[in-house]
Amino acid sequence: MESYPVQLEIPVAWGDMDAFGHVNNTVYLRWFESARIALFERIDIGATRPEKVGPILASTTCDYLTPVEYPATVVVGARMQRIGNTSFIIEHLATKHGAPVARGSAVVVLIDYETGEKVRVPDEMRSAIDSLGGAQATGPR
Amino acid sequence: MESYPVQLEIPVAWGDMDAFGHVNNTVYLRWFESARIALFERIDIGATRPEKVGPILASTTCDYLTPVEYPATVVVGARMQRIGNTSFIIEHLATKHGAPVARGSAVVVLIDYETGEKVRVPDEMRSAIDSLGGAQATGPR
Amino acid sequence: MESYPVQLEIPVAWGDMDAFGHVNNTVYLRWFESARIALFERIDIGATRPEKVGPILASTTCDYLTPVEYPATVVVGARMQRIGNTSFIIEHLATKHGAPVARGSAVVVLIDYETGEKVRVPDEMRSAIDSLGGAQATGPR
Amino acid sequence: MESYPVQLEIPVAWGDMDAFGHVNNTVYLRWFESARIALFERIDIGATRPEKVGPILASTTCDYLTPVEYPATVVVGARMQRIGNTSFIIEHLATKHGAPVARGSAVVVLIDYETGEKVRVPDEMRSAIDSLGGAQATGPR
Repeated sequence: MESYPVQLEIPVAWGDMDAFGHVNNTVYLRWFESARIALFERIDIGATRPEKVGPILASTTCDYLTPVEYPATVVVGARMQRIGNTSFIIEHLATKHGAPVARGSAVVVLIDYETGEKVRVPDEMRSAIDSLGGAQATGPR
Repeated sequence: MESYPVQLEIPVAWGDMDAFGHVNNTVYLRWFESARIALFERIDIGATRPEKVGPILASTTCDYLTPVEYPATVVVGARMQRIGNTSFIIEHLATKHGAPVARGSAVVVLIDYETGEKVRVPDEMRSAIDSLGGAQATGPR
Repeated sequence: MESYPVQLEIPVAWGDMDAFGHVNNTVYLRWFESARIALFERIDIGATRPEKVGPILASTTCDYLTPVEYPATVVVGARMQRIGNTSFIIEHLATKHGAPVARGSAVVVLIDYETGEKVRVPDEMRSAIDSLGGAQATGPR
Repeated sequence: MESYPVQLEIPVAWGDMDAFGHVNNTVYLRWFESARIALFERIDIGATRPEKVGPILASTTCDYLTPVEYPATVVVGARMQRIGNTSFIIEHLATKHGAPVARGSAVVVLIDYETGEKVRVPDEMRSAIDSLGGAQATGPR
């Protein structure tokens, strides 16, 4: 988890569990979203409220490693895995007592909300990502 | 909030907001549920997993005092307002930076899950509630 | 349910159930919200997207009459119970196979989102409510 | 969508939208879960309530193709893509007015809940899957 510049501590709610008595699979995606938003705030990507240019989620993945039950607290991380021309790949990790309970990823595309066109990741955003650590800009995507 | 024996600190998730940009009304009920479950754990009411005798929710209320937006952390409290023969009334309070953002209540009935019959609140549970402070047993209900 | 001008048929999702194997209490509030929004659309209250003047939720109540389990379909109704100067009281009913499973209410205040001031319910909205049937304008609130 | 033996029609709730005014990414996973559970019911996999042997979710993916906004109704499908020794791969498709809005997948492992051991997919389940159409048993996994 040390390589994740964003780490959120999130208490598991009793109501996060489903009829199988485990935290429901959709809740992990909510955790990852929360960490991703926190990462976006760090690079000033305007992700919490609609703006002219902003991120749109293209895909998500989640590997469920260990069932989680209430009561628990998880630590959820986000880091940039890859920066393309107009998109990012973000990696997620959720841990409990330091042990991984889930891993995931998100592909995020930067778009102009008015035109719907993809937008090149601006240089200042790339610099902000660099200063976070843990990510390397690579080729076009 | 000092009179609430159970107080949970809950981070607001970005995804708790709805299309109006405020925390959705159902999320407050989730907060109250979390505090209620924590209260039940304190009095050993067997509320987190199905058991023979346990609580069933009869009604809830919520007064929305101030809209809440991400980012924020709320403190959510639960206390016993009244103990009847077979039921409790629980009061809830949610605050942000010490200011109330919502108040609510829940009526909880103790039942035998097998027979579906209401069950008298056992004496040991009444003692546990007394030791919490903040509640007074009153007449039948 | 006949007296409810808005009636939505909503399938219960397996994931609506919590660790007790019943539809979670917050889901009922989501059902009521859906019916309320549909009611607002009928009276052109601008409730689905932010506008200059719109509704804000002041309070909700819910009486849980019968536990609901997946699989099921519920019918959820909304009707105007009372129209005040600047607010409405809406009544909700949820049924399964025609039998009530929950009743609820919502107090909704009309506000100017820019100034935060309460706004008098406009005459055209009152007319729209009248034409819905099932509501009677009463004194100030 | 014709090749999906399970197809659910699900109304989009206003509250499914997040602060960007689109259906939140976690909601798609809830849709997929609902279709998956319906598929499990068709092959008698005991997925809605805890039993001795049952499915556990190992991973999910979702490609978000088109933002969805309220009001809308989606059709969500599930089909078996692959059956292994102890696991399935399920494919998901969500459409609106016949056009794809999201695709996804889920890897599901069959386990003995008491021992935690993986369990071979029983022959009767394989037969039930065959009779659904749209799936072909392949090599071990």
